Amino acid sequence: MNHILNLKTNKRIETIEITKEIKELISKSNFSSGLCVIYSPHTTSGIMINESYDPSVIEDINTFLSKLAPHKRDYLHLEGNSDAHIQSSIIGPSKTVIIEDEKLVLGSWQGIFFMEFDGPRSRNIHIKLIKG
Amino acid sequence: MNHILNLKTNKRIETIEITKEIKELISKSNFSSGLCVIYSPHTTSGIMINESYDPSVIEDINTFLSKLAPHKRDYLHLEGNSDAHIQSSIIGPSKTVIIEDEKLVLGSWQGIFFMEFDGPRSRNIHIKLIKG
Amino acid sequence: MNHILNLKTNKRIETIEITKEIKELISKSNFSSGLCVIYSPHTTSGIMINESYDPSVIEDINTFLSKLAPHKRDYLHLEGNSDAHIQSSIIGPSKTVIIEDEKLVLGSWQGIFFMEFDGPRSRNIHIKLIKG
Repeated sequence: MNHILNLKTNKRIETIEITKEIKELISKSNFSSGLCVIYSPHTTSGIMINESYDPSVIEDINTFLSKLAPHKRDYLHLEGNSDAHIQSSIIGPSKTVIIEDEKLVLGSWQGIFFMEFDGPRSRNIHIKLIKG
Repeated sequence: MNHILNLKTNKRIETIEITKEIKELISKSNFSSGLCVIYSPHTTSGIMINESYDPSVIEDINTFLSKLAPHKRDYLHLEGNSDAHIQSSIIGPSKTVIIEDEKLVLGSWQGIFFMEFDGPRSRNIHIKLIKG
Repeated sequence: MNHILNLKTNKRIETIEITKEIKELISKSNFSSGLCVIYSPHTTSGIMINESYDPSVIEDINTFLSKLAPHKRDYLHLEGNSDAHIQSSIIGPSKTVIIEDEKLVLGSWQGIFFMEFDGPRSRNIHIKLIKG
């Protein structure tokens, strides 16, 4: 099964937690064991797994990435958003999570996040469940 | 099949090679072809694949990460371990390896490593085998 | 099915797009739905997904990585290529892409790239298709 999750961002840099939507999908699908692949088909975004309890962790990660690859530096790419492409290449376009006993194997503090580095945008995230 | 590997770290930053344990698991499982997903459910850790022959490569990578996101900098997250969350987001919580002819498709120099960035900790790593 | 793609690089740092080869493989395999895992068994390389339309994006990413972990710095690893191992650990040795309706779920601007950070080399990249 391949599901599409539509997300809208309102700022240039914005991270949206999608853990709840993915858990609901697995619950509805009556899926007992396998893999869940969360994939972003966009080149200025990424899928990250990290702490969901304290939102300041996500803010610290975004601040770090913005300093690491700053906006408005001298890049070759004329669209002027190479900082976002670089941040996307560090975080990566997808994550793979294990499903066991009808549940995502996530840690107590882990959440799944869509990160946009060059918004605002309307984005489609693909979620694929593989039995096994 | 989902297997759990318990690991204990003794220092704040510590990397443990788990290649042998994963190879033994595949060998015992009589598994011929598919994928092996190694997943850490912890938000200050990561799973990395890199050179296992010379341990100084791992040391160089950890030194690099510690300088890139230093400890005790001004982070918002009050627990004071945002450096570890950032390093975790760069390395990522999991790796996917191919299994073919009853063996992991690893390069001659490649090893699979659990990296803790905020230990000492007792950690459970999940290993899922998918046939295909 | 596990397929091997042989690639040759001619410079120390070189990125080769492999999207077309992977699409052809899926097309020839008559594969309708599942996952495609692209895996590099080499410790100074990585698999990345990012913009394929404007080659200057890839150039900007390589320039960024070369500055982030410079060549000829003081590393412990005596082979002198720890910069390449570090860059490899940031990009990662593999990517997982969804296959749906006999096609790779890639965004309009996304391409799949093999990145070598310590060439020139002759490299074998593994491509595994998993039904589901």
